Amino acid sequence: MKRFSWAIFLAGIMGSLFFSGAVHALDEKLHAQLDELKNATVHSTLSYDIIESLTTEVGARMVGTPAEKKSVEWAMVKMKELGFDKVWKEESQAPDWQRGELEVALTSPFHHKLVALSLGNSVGTSAGAIEAQVEMFESLEALSAAKQNSLAGKIAYVAFAMERRKDGSGYSEAVGARVNGASIAAKRGAVAFAMRSVGTDSHRFAHTGVMRYSEGNNHIPAIALSNPDADLLENALLRTQPVTMSISSTASGKLNNNVTIANVIGEITGSENPEEIVTLGAHLDSWDVGTGAIDDGIGVGITLAAVNHITKMKQRPKRTIRVILFAAEEIGLLGAKDYVEKHKDNMMNHVIGAEWDFGNGKIYKLAPGVGDTSLSKLKEFAGYLSPMGVEMASTNNAKGQSDMSLLGKAGQPAVNFYPDGNDYFDYHHTENDTLDKVNQEALKTNTAIYTMFAWYAANSGVDFRK
Amino acid sequence: MKRFSWAIFLAGIMGSLFFSGAVHALDEKLHAQLDELKNATVHSTLSYDIIESLTTEVGARMVGTPAEKKSVEWAMVKMKELGFDKVWKEESQAPDWQRGELEVALTSPFHHKLVALSLGNSVGTSAGAIEAQVEMFESLEALSAAKQNSLAGKIAYVAFAMERRKDGSGYSEAVGARVNGASIAAKRGAVAFAMRSVGTDSHRFAHTGVMRYSEGNNHIPAIALSNPDADLLENALLRTQPVTMSISSTASGKLNNNVTIANVIGEITGSENPEEIVTLGAHLDSWDVGTGAIDDGIGVGITLAAVNHITKMKQRPKRTIRVILFAAEEIGLLGAKDYVEKHKDNMMNHVIGAEWDFGNGKIYKLAPGVGDTSLSKLKEFAGYLSPMGVEMASTNNAKGQSDMSLLGKAGQPAVNFYPDGNDYFDYHHTENDTLDKVNQEALKTNTAIYTMFAWYAANSGVDFRK
Repeated sequence: MKRFSWAIFLAGIMGSLFFSGAVHALDEKLHAQLDELKNATVHSTLSYDIIESLTTEVGARMVGTPAEKKSVEWAMVKMKELGFDKVWKEESQAPDWQRGELEVALTSPFHHKLVALSLGNSVGTSAGAIEAQVEMFESLEALSAAKQNSLAGKIAYVAFAMERRKDGSGYSEAVGARVNGASIAAKRGAVAFAMRSVGTDSHRFAHTGVMRYSEGNNHIPAIALSNPDADLLENALLRTQPVTMSISSTASGKLNNNVTIANVIGEITGSENPEEIVTLGAHLDSWDVGTGAIDDGIGVGITLAAVNHITKMKQRPKRTIRVILFAAEEIGLLGAKDYVEKHKDNMMNHVIGAEWDFGNGKIYKLAPGVGDTSLSKLKEFAGYLSPMGVEMASTNNAKGQSDMSLLGKAGQPAVNFYPDGNDYFDYHHTENDTLDKVNQEALKTNTAIYTMFAWYAANSGVDFRK
Repeated sequence: MKRFSWAIFLAGIMGSLFFSGAVHALDEKLHAQLDELKNATVHSTLSYDIIESLTTEVGARMVGTPAEKKSVEWAMVKMKELGFDKVWKEESQAPDWQRGELEVALTSPFHHKLVALSLGNSVGTSAGAIEAQVEMFESLEALSAAKQNSLAGKIAYVAFAMERRKDGSGYSEAVGARVNGASIAAKRGAVAFAMRSVGTDSHRFAHTGVMRYSEGNNHIPAIALSNPDADLLENALLRTQPVTMSISSTASGKLNNNVTIANVIGEITGSENPEEIVTLGAHLDSWDVGTGAIDDGIGVGITLAAVNHITKMKQRPKRTIRVILFAAEEIGLLGAKDYVEKHKDNMMNHVIGAEWDFGNGKIYKLAPGVGDTSLSKLKEFAGYLSPMGVEMASTNNAKGQSDMSLLGKAGQPAVNFYPDGNDYFDYHHTENDTLDKVNQEALKTNTAIYTMFAWYAANSGVDFRK
């Protein structure tokens, strides 16, 4: 006998109140189609299988490596296999940079090999190893406050530790040192720049990532230490001065545009409004140290799987759904720049877009950046997602994330989906970004949400530009 | 106003019933002394500070490296600083082995650099890189079942994955492949041996550890892959055959006894029965890849701190308390063997001993190996520890852990303390064994327990040999 449960009864009432009263309901047919897609996707392992394929058959795919070329071929074949109507690539040029070999050691008063990575774009130590006294700064601001020439002959070290937060906002506080630290240090006479990795883990992995040289300053080598090695260096610095470090690097630091890169683009053509384009973005390139499962294999898996799930529907989507796997995101959104340049005359037909480039966590928020008129319609879709734990932001200024932000700046409406980013910077840009880190349950949910978003955007008839 | 709490009242009654009724109480004076030690130690950071000093000022300290010599000097100075009455070292000889450089790659059908470490004692690839087809076995037993010559020209790979358990017992199921796999593979014609690391983490660290060549078989290189790299290899093997791997190693594999090692020994001399010795053991050496904070910096920290805390008591301990920091544990308990050999005529005066060589977790069990008469007295001490979450095993056959097991076999009574070992094999023998992994709260509790154990053993008057 099933006993009457007041808890279930009350939950039922409250659910009914919420979904019928608090938000506008979707059109019934669209609602049923989203249900159908949700049921089809939420238990599917397709997006995981795509990530497994990319990381196993290609692996690390940094711009300028043979594997990056291979990833382009992999993506075109995979899109065709998954039922895309059209698949093509759009080539452009990018600078070459090769990591080479790096050896870093604490040399006095204690001797330790230190785990470190060159930052992307960094020059090497062409004149042989650099061995110099380390001067520590708490932050990039403290380094910036150092006087001219005060670091002559020294290695500048920035100790700033990134904070773990759900929205990943600790990254923006920490990444300035990675991008600009070397030039600020060089301006003050430093012979090399070192920093605590921009990352939230406490494992012995350094986090790489792109840096830039500003004009007029010496190009000095720039490296990041793993967090445990940064602790060790700082514990040595607490005891005694001078502390010396040696850096030996064969990083190439070539900056001429001699590497061909390619955005890989695939779409299912819309049945009623083929000229109107819904874009799903991710980036195909990765750094060279891990296999790029999290960054951004997950984005590749989610966007490709979403389209495949949609090809299984009885109807074709009314608008065109286009997946753009951007090239060279890691070294400065170069593929996205090229896309905007090549498609600028058609940007008005890009009706909405969303990128996935933030890893592993379950989506908890949807932030719109659409026309005022269409906002209330988008709320109906958000209401549909609400039982899946997705809230809608009260702002309406999203421009798209990562690569897609350039399309947003060029006029494309956007939805930003926010996954729980608490662990993203544990793996970001490290050797440890591998398949086993993919949260398969969250991935299923996120794939379902992206699939439903693409369907909704292509079939609701809402013009998000208005 | 403080309100009456039935929960606290009942807990009080039940506590009283248990401690006054279920176990015999300790002598009142001894009880008070243990309380005094507990209060002094449970909030002290001394054991952590010792680990910080060892890992920062010395770091990795593998037998055959300059840092191992430095660790001996460090330990002697530290013991003197901490108030030991006598400090000395006892030297012996050990084989030399140097890791050299290792490069491992999956070469076909996909290309990946693989994260791997040579196993301790492994030979290198003296005739240049080995590139060969990989043949996978689920376990050492499956490898053992392969026919003679069936692996000719191949790399044998054992995929067995260690299980995570509180008592660490998954290790004994997995470690056989590490120790014996290469010879079993060589007997069947293999040119190299590879295995999934003996470890419970899913980070990109390989786990090293000692292996042995059995007589009559070729000495072939032996390596362990990190768990994510093992996943990658196995995913490749699921797709297609042949899968090939290359191994290039400059490991030296010298086995002559040309390295001088030293046990470092310190004691506070007993005030009434100085000839009766209570031993606390840990090992001073580590592998070369991490800084040996967990294995076995924690043991060094706990044992040295315990003695220092005891030197602060008004009374001196009645029996002698001796800390033995064993040499060359990692390559086969060589320091412990030497200790037993040198002290065999005095082993009957070793009244009881305990080793700490199992990392980070809070102690939850005490297992005795003492004379039948003294067992009931030891239960009084266990009863005292019970409110700290320590239970006493019902068996009485402990011989001492790690190094101390050899003293146990030579007749020394023992107590084995069991910490929660769930995370121990996440870090064991990896580059990731660093200071930040030390659980500082558990360390305080464990240091208190060891301090109280040493005091109890030296002052209770109980003869654990009887």
